[in-house]
Amino acid sequence: MTELRSNRGPLRVAVLGCGSVGSQVVRLLDESAVDLAARIGVPIELAGVAVRRLDAPREVEVPDGLLTTDALELVSRPDVDLVIETIGGIEPARSLILTALESGKSVVSANKALIAEDGATLFEAAEKAGRDFYFEAAVAAAIPILRPLRESLAGDRVTRVMGIVNGTTNFILDKMDTLGSGFAETLEEAQELGYAEADPTADVEGFDAAAKIAILASIAFHTRVTAADVHREGITEVTSSDVRSAAEIGSVVKLLGIAELVSTGSHDKDAVSVRVHPAMIPRSHPLASVRGPFNAVFVECDAADQLMFYGRGAGGAPTASAVLGDLVTVARHLLSGTTGAGESAYAAREVLPMGQTRTKYHVAIDVDDRAGVLAAVANAFADHDVSIQTVRQEGRGDDAQLVVVSHSATDAQLSATVEQLRGMEIVREVTSVMRVEGGDDE
Amino acid sequence: MTELRSNRGPLRVAVLGCGSVGSQVVRLLDESAVDLAARIGVPIELAGVAVRRLDAPREVEVPDGLLTTDALELVSRPDVDLVIETIGGIEPARSLILTALESGKSVVSANKALIAEDGATLFEAAEKAGRDFYFEAAVAAAIPILRPLRESLAGDRVTRVMGIVNGTTNFILDKMDTLGSGFAETLEEAQELGYAEADPTADVEGFDAAAKIAILASIAFHTRVTAADVHREGITEVTSSDVRSAAEIGSVVKLLGIAELVSTGSHDKDAVSVRVHPAMIPRSHPLASVRGPFNAVFVECDAADQLMFYGRGAGGAPTASAVLGDLVTVARHLLSGTTGAGESAYAAREVLPMGQTRTKYHVAIDVDDRAGVLAAVANAFADHDVSIQTVRQEGRGDDAQLVVVSHSATDAQLSATVEQLRGMEIVREVTSVMRVEGGDDE
Repeated sequence: MTELRSNRGPLRVAVLGCGSVGSQVVRLLDESAVDLAARIGVPIELAGVAVRRLDAPREVEVPDGLLTTDALELVSRPDVDLVIETIGGIEPARSLILTALESGKSVVSANKALIAEDGATLFEAAEKAGRDFYFEAAVAAAIPILRPLRESLAGDRVTRVMGIVNGTTNFILDKMDTLGSGFAETLEEAQELGYAEADPTADVEGFDAAAKIAILASIAFHTRVTAADVHREGITEVTSSDVRSAAEIGSVVKLLGIAELVSTGSHDKDAVSVRVHPAMIPRSHPLASVRGPFNAVFVECDAADQLMFYGRGAGGAPTASAVLGDLVTVARHLLSGTTGAGESAYAAREVLPMGQTRTKYHVAIDVDDRAGVLAAVANAFADHDVSIQTVRQEGRGDDAQLVVVSHSATDAQLSATVEQLRGMEIVREVTSVMRVEGGDDE
Repeated sequence: MTELRSNRGPLRVAVLGCGSVGSQVVRLLDESAVDLAARIGVPIELAGVAVRRLDAPREVEVPDGLLTTDALELVSRPDVDLVIETIGGIEPARSLILTALESGKSVVSANKALIAEDGATLFEAAEKAGRDFYFEAAVAAAIPILRPLRESLAGDRVTRVMGIVNGTTNFILDKMDTLGSGFAETLEEAQELGYAEADPTADVEGFDAAAKIAILASIAFHTRVTAADVHREGITEVTSSDVRSAAEIGSVVKLLGIAELVSTGSHDKDAVSVRVHPAMIPRSHPLASVRGPFNAVFVECDAADQLMFYGRGAGGAPTASAVLGDLVTVARHLLSGTTGAGESAYAAREVLPMGQTRTKYHVAIDVDDRAGVLAAVANAFADHDVSIQTVRQEGRGDDAQLVVVSHSATDAQLSATVEQLRGMEIVREVTSVMRVEGGDDE
């Protein structure tokens, strides 16, 4: 382990980036200086803030002489003990973090994209340097979820993690539910209110949620899952008819990130299923009442049973809170010459293809209202060995609507069933197809 | 620091008590042995289990020769590295924990009563011995809340902790809300279902919740709060009329443990208010949907804003999950020759008397239905300088009901107002008086 610069004087921190998160980190380092010093044991001093342009407008005043455009020089400086990375994206963030670790700095990062794509490289560099790499802020911002999974639940067996981990899509689906509006108009409103970006792709197509659930799956199941392993469906295809159908079965549509252990016979060889998609969940489920921009992660464990962690999943100050929580921990470690537990990927689990993942489907079908229709539809499910949990038929003039909720079957069986339904002569239209989560596992 | 017995071989654990929690700990130590070894770095071995009677019936089979009635000998044995205390109560638990720490063992405890009464003695002993004393399981069982408060939020300023931390009372109030039944009959049902003890005092009088909120307050606010500091009111006086009144204002009655910072001008001198009492909270509040035996702790912070932690607050397996999470942490510390952060009580805050605590009251009053009544009631509030937020009057024959919700005022002002109302000639009866929480702070 590289020697610590000093174990008595203040610890010196470099902050990379001074956007919405970085500026809040700089503000809190100043405003909470007395408390941070009491909690760590020595004061924290701001050593420098790396920015792209010295003259850009900022939410916080950075003391004279501390701003620099040379981030690489800053993270290598011998008078820096800790580095906080708030730049985001893959490069130059990755190179800067690696250089910081190699120079004996512990690093705190809020960078979900980088960790979900190439966390292994960073974990290995931290391990090799004998330093900490912490990243609570990368998933669901202020909500303490990675530390509880890594530490509080280290004596338990997590079997499932199911989260609303994207505030933009939750805000949109929430509005569609309460106002009955369609996706496009609701997205527009979210953009006007600042809840969605001008280019909303990362949120509405589920990329943001996929990065987060990849990180959660890795930590919960002691394995390596990257964003590329995650089956991903966004909310752009969710219609007001889907939302209405959900309401009719006492459910609500949420974009869920789901990671679950899938039994393969013996515990230590369990595979994982990791996916992001919209799903109907019962209104009585704790996740159903997570509204607007709030996030929540629902965790199921063998011994602890059901847990939920709720809070703000985005925003400068909430994210900065998580960054500073990590900072206090890594600072204490640095002072006591130790490190946290690091990556735990001993289980090395297979990631199951979506087709083999077991789910339940809700299917709403417009059919001709004549004899034999129900039997024909039931046969389509039976042809693919999918058993039906509930069916509801409503006549309306010369056509009828059939709503089927299946029992759990593989996603491949279910999508083949829907494919077959779509080709049937008596089926006018399959108006809504959506997975159903959060109920019984039948 | 006492030298570690060995830093290569297995770590050996003594378990004190083999009741509902202890037996689950013993079971999980066995069933999760492979995972625990992978997460800690060395295997965990059961060194002994201390019980009162060797021949008592148990939920778990303890291997031959590991049962002992000599707990004191067990915690002093040189071949024991870690001690798990699941006995509960003050003595002999305290003496055993102190002896274990003095003998160089790290200790994990689930003992809320002891920690809330005399935590300081234990923290000091751990500090002196250079060992860990961890107790996540003491508050809300499986819900990771102490670690998030101590570590995840170490860079933030917690301003308020509000929790449903007793499952028995939550079950009873929940039933009273959904069934409209009274306290006595609902308690009886809870006892029949095993949700309440034969002697329900500790739960229904709020002693259990008081111990937990004392611990939460100490950790959240970096100070020392004992159970004796907590203002405590149970739910035995809650009537079906209170529950109905709550429903009429879109609220629900919950037994809350509340700890909050109270401004006294400068942050570092803020006092704390710590209390347990039934209160009406809006149905839209995240705590309102916490049902039956579940617990939840709602935390407000400067930067993180609102967080909630939800899960099972009691039970053998959920409590054992928290115990083993702590075990993994203290075992890692022992191997790396370090300890966790220990007690943080640097703020040394004053605990405010209840009379000086600011709350809001909901008051339902049966009055004569004649001119001047509203003015007289309003005057009673004004006499004590209590401003009224909402008032609702309903005539019914020759009497009327007035429902007043006050703005926030000191508890002393509010109780004096109610006292005065009770003595007024036009007031037939004050039918419901209850604090209101979880809304705006006006």
